[in-house]
Parts: sequence; C-alpha cells; structure tokens
Amino acid sequence: MTDSASDQSVTAGILVIGDEILSGRTKDSNSGYICEYLSEVGIEVREIRTVPDVSAMIVEAVDALRERYTYVFTTGGIGPTHDDITADAIASAFGVGIDIDERAVALMRHRYPNADLTSARLRMARIPQGADLIENAVSGAPGFHIGNVFVMAGVPRIMQSMLDEIGSRLKTGRRIFSETINAPMPEGKIAEPLAKIAEAHPDVQIGSYPHFDGTRFLTQIVVRSRETDKLAAAKSAVEAAVAELTVPDK
Amino acid sequence: MTDSASDQSVTAGILVIGDEILSGRTKDSNSGYICEYLSEVGIEVREIRTVPDVSAMIVEAVDALRERYTYVFTTGGIGPTHDDITADAIASAFGVGIDIDERAVALMRHRYPNADLTSARLRMARIPQGADLIENAVSGAPGFHIGNVFVMAGVPRIMQSMLDEIGSRLKTGRRIFSETINAPMPEGKIAEPLAKIAEAHPDVQIGSYPHFDGTRFLTQIVVRSRETDKLAAAKSAVEAAVAELTVPDK
Repeated sequence: MTDSASDQSVTAGILVIGDEILSGRTKDSNSGYICEYLSEVGIEVREIRTVPDVSAMIVEAVDALRERYTYVFTTGGIGPTHDDITADAIASAFGVGIDIDERAVALMRHRYPNADLTSARLRMARIPQGADLIENAVSGAPGFHIGNVFVMAGVPRIMQSMLDEIGSRLKTGRRIFSETINAPMPEGKIAEPLAKIAEAHPDVQIGSYPHFDGTRFLTQIVVRSRETDKLAAAKSAVEAAVAELTVPDK
Repeated sequence: MTDSASDQSVTAGILVIGDEILSGRTKDSNSGYICEYLSEVGIEVREIRTVPDVSAMIVEAVDALRERYTYVFTTGGIGPTHDDITADAIASAFGVGIDIDERAVALMRHRYPNADLTSARLRMARIPQGADLIENAVSGAPGFHIGNVFVMAGVPRIMQSMLDEIGSRLKTGRRIFSETINAPMPEGKIAEPLAKIAEAHPDVQIGSYPHFDGTRFLTQIVVRSRETDKLAAAKSAVEAAVAELTVPDK
C-alpha cells in the first residue's frame, strides 16, 4: 500500500430490480458478486436495495442511493419484454428523455448480423439521453452509465461481463485488506476479549461470524483495515485471545 | 381457493443487517429463503434492504419499512459480540428502553443448564421493552417481535427455526399461485406476443426470465395470480404462443 493512495473513501450502493427476486423464485447472486468485486478494489458497498418492477419504486431507490454514495450499480430489468422497465425508470429519475440509441443498435447488429431486430429487441436499445453505453461480450445488448449510476443486466453472465467493462472507469479507494481467524468455540466465549481488542484497535474493523456445523457453534473472526501494519497487530491480538481460550479446554 | 379469503394484500419488507454481507465475505441466503417462505403463504415481499452494523442506518431502514408494509423481518446482529447492535437499534427506532430480559435468560438457561452465562452471553438476552420473544430450537437465544417487526438471527439454521416459530402469528394473504412455461428461445423472440398476453390478462402477473446455458439464450415465463382460473387461461395463452414460435423452426 502506498501513501499516495487517496484516503477519501469511495462508496457504493447496489439496486437489484425484479419481481422474481422478491417472490423467491430467483435467488439474487449478483449483489454478492458485486460486493466482492468492489471490496477488492477498495470501494465500500454501504447499502443494497431490492425493489420490484415498479417504476416509482425504482426511481425512489435510485434517487436515494445516488445522492448518498459515490456510485450506484443496478442489475435487472433491461431486457426486451414488457416487464423490463429499468431504462425508462432511470431516465425518469434523471429527468431526461429516452429513445432508441443508434450506438446500441449498431452494437446489437454487430453481434447478431443476421438477427431480426424486432421492435421487442429494439427495446433493448432504448437508452436515456446523455448516457454512455456499457458493452457486453455475451449478448450484444448494452447496459449504460448516466451520472454516477451504472445500469447492468440481471443475467449473471452478462452482468459480470458489464462489470469487467466498467471496472476501468471507476475511481477506486484504498484497498481494504482482511484476515480471517478461526475460533473453535461459540461467539459467547470469545466476545469479551474481542470487544477489548476492538476498542484497542480503532482503525481495524473486527467482525465475528458464528456458524453452526450441525452439532457445534464455531466462530470466524474477520479483521479488516486499509493499513497492513495495524491489521497485523489486531490479527496477532485475536490469535492470542483464541489460543488462550483454546488450550485449557484440551 | 375460497372466496372467503381476504382480498386485502399482506405485504412485507426484509432488512438484512451486517457488514459481512456488504463486504462480499458472506453471501446472504436468508432473504431469498424468507421471500420463498412468505410467498407460499400469500405474503408479498415488496422490498429488501441490506445495511451495515451502523445504528443510524438500521434505525432509518426499519422505520422506512415498518411504515410501509404489514410486516418487517430483520436478520443478523443479535449475537453476543461488540458488533451485534440490532436489538439496541430496534429499541431506539421504537423509542423504548432495552435491558436484560428474564424470560430470555430463562430460555438460555433451559437450553444450556451448565453454561456460564457470561456478560457477553447475557447480551443476547437484551430485549426491547414491550417485545415478545421468538424462541429458537437451535441456540436457545431468542429473537423478538415488537410492533410489526420480527427480529431474527443471521445464522441461517437459527433464522429458519425462528421463522417456523412465528409462522402461526402472521396474518396470511390469499395465496399466489404460479406456473412456469419453458420457452426454448431468447426473450426477444417471444416478447411481443407476451406483451399482448399480459395486456389481455390484467389479473395475472407475467414475468419473463432469460438465462444463458453457455451457448444459447433460453427463457422461462412465469405466470402468477391469486385466481386459479385466470392463471390457467394465461398459461394456455403463453403455451400457445410458445408452440407457435417453436414449430416452424423445427
């Protein structure tokens, strides 16, 4: 880590759009993927919202998130069918027009030179005015980027291709490093020493994550920091606390 | 389906709490599970929010959701460690006090008669005033229910046990039935007939979900309705449209 890296944090909100997520039919894997991707480049995801295919709810959520965070990433609702209303909702949130975009049509023709660009398929070329396109290698139909909002597809393969495409446009933060310590005990046993360590290491985030292996509770302790020396010190303190609580039980 | 079932819709919001979800370290499976569980009893999930372990953000989200929806279900942040602040945040949202609850202590003692109830473990017995407990068979430490908000653990096995426990307390809606039709074609090919079918069947929700099998785009069409006769009519119309588009290509 270099000192020249900006100290200012770069933040993000994620907006997942689609009735199918809320009905439980489709399990959202996109938001977890985006969180992991952004964490690795030092962008801190602060909030995720999932809303149905309802224009007013999309507009409200995108407005709330784009005011609060450096970036907003949306997934879902940019396909060719009647329930794909994300592009129109985003145009409405930004107060701009929306129409078939010749750049998008060209991308789609290039990918499928022999395909019939039906009016349904052309729906995927509807892009809000002033937006930049986000190409994708899988389907041809682009996402778009307007203001601080990146609008991506819901199909995971396509979303991932779009995220790779926009990676280089993002201002990244100072990377957050993390270390995980396994504690072979329930959280309650390690909680008090952990609280003291957290207090003594204010620049390190210390999270405690219980899991149940079917018979016993185990705990993973995750220490996170932008500063590697402080991270190492906190990690040592946690390891010492775990060791102290483990040995006598043997 | 009986006509005596209430026509009034029962709605829900879900609040997922935890830094580990936003950092991408832990993939949230709880919200998808809850969506599926509630859909099956006719409760319509309208929104999901995920926020970090930050009191002000928990309070803001729970307040927004509890005003809008019949029920709010939260997961995460009720363990024994320093980063478990959900119970305090909920008390703060409701403007009530919070203290160690003797009913919760009794449940924990009953489950672990020989365990040392350290001050960390007793943290899990902190319950906002006026709340009812939600028992769980796995860990003993309860969740709680205050106003229209149900506060549950983040560990999936425990959360699921709590959801089973509260199921009988919920007012359920008219169940929504659904049917899925597989269309062996990209969305763009079926989009126009689907839009017409959606218009002709206003009491049926018609969703179109593309997926990519590695070489081809396929589409699943899901029809959903509280009324089985209307559902059957829409399903037939979709099947006919798919058949018409499939046969000539053979």
